[in-house]
Amino acid sequence: MEGLELVRELQKLEPRLSEEVVDDQLAFAGRIFSAHLLTVRDAAGELAAREVVYHHGGCGVAAVRDGRLCLVRQYRVALGRMTLEIPAGKLDPGEDPATCAARELAEETGLVADRLELIANSAGAPGFNNEKTRVFVARGLHEGAAHPDADEYVDVVWLPVADVVAAIRAGLIEDAKTIVAAFAVAGGLL
Amino acid sequence: MEGLELVRELQKLEPRLSEEVVDDQLAFAGRIFSAHLLTVRDAAGELAAREVVYHHGGCGVAAVRDGRLCLVRQYRVALGRMTLEIPAGKLDPGEDPATCAARELAEETGLVADRLELIANSAGAPGFNNEKTRVFVARGLHEGAAHPDADEYVDVVWLPVADVVAAIRAGLIEDAKTIVAAFAVAGGLL
Repeated sequence: MEGLELVRELQKLEPRLSEEVVDDQLAFAGRIFSAHLLTVRDAAGELAAREVVYHHGGCGVAAVRDGRLCLVRQYRVALGRMTLEIPAGKLDPGEDPATCAARELAEETGLVADRLELIANSAGAPGFNNEKTRVFVARGLHEGAAHPDADEYVDVVWLPVADVVAAIRAGLIEDAKTIVAAFAVAGGLL
Repeated sequence: MEGLELVRELQKLEPRLSEEVVDDQLAFAGRIFSAHLLTVRDAAGELAAREVVYHHGGCGVAAVRDGRLCLVRQYRVALGRMTLEIPAGKLDPGEDPATCAARELAEETGLVADRLELIANSAGAPGFNNEKTRVFVARGLHEGAAHPDADEYVDVVWLPVADVVAAIRAGLIEDAKTIVAAFAVAGGLL
């Protein structure tokens, strides 16, 4: 067995390695995420505590023109700093990720894509968090009518992909979906 | 201004886009993370609620031999499934990320690297979470003495980098640090 078939096989549930949830206490119920205290029976049969965060996930879009990647410059209070990130947003429960990505691209940049192609589903920290960002690349970009959200305070900048990669390697750009997008574009993986 | 200098300038605090924290309520204090309900004054001067998760972050290591990437096969209760991820672990508060990465590589695989080189600091979901994974590539790999943690139930597999990239593009491998590592290796960005 090899390739995708092997990857699928390796990710099938393996009781020898698995954990069973035997108790689930809601520790915090927010609008954006919830925190749960789980009790699991681990692979050795022992009870253990697990803290997990549940979130609906999000989407992001790599928009590239003339060798430049579209980035949104914004303040992130969780990090306490300004960041540069590809256009992105939260998924509403049950929302189609490509629909979400097209909406966020239009809201933040005014751009419209003929087609969005999946680069990756990026689970930021699966050790404690189910958050997953669907990262797309935009094909057939053209200008639509810009309509930023009233409560969104962002600037849009277009930086050379090579400079974005250098900034990532230097630890200056840290957003996971932006790293995934820039590496895929710069590495010719799309 | 261009290159890294421009990236630094763009990420300097910009009052026009920033938010000021005016209240911080601890909503959940766990061993692994804490959840906070912040009240911020946003860029328009309005009060707004922000839910954030604080976590000490982690580290991960890309170990490559003969065109194959070292992956750990494990169960992730936050996702409710088995995953394939590069060797990784949580940072202790104040711990040097490269020290953490070397320890986790040895614990999970028995491998020792002459040198660890930073690929990226990957912030998984900066919209609500400060978790950051420092992703390294191992240089000069050799066998040490394997000493897996007593409570760690994992298998180690070595998959062709091209297969890992194909599985990522198909949405089968989703871990952010693993995507960052595989794309950097496959794209010749290191």
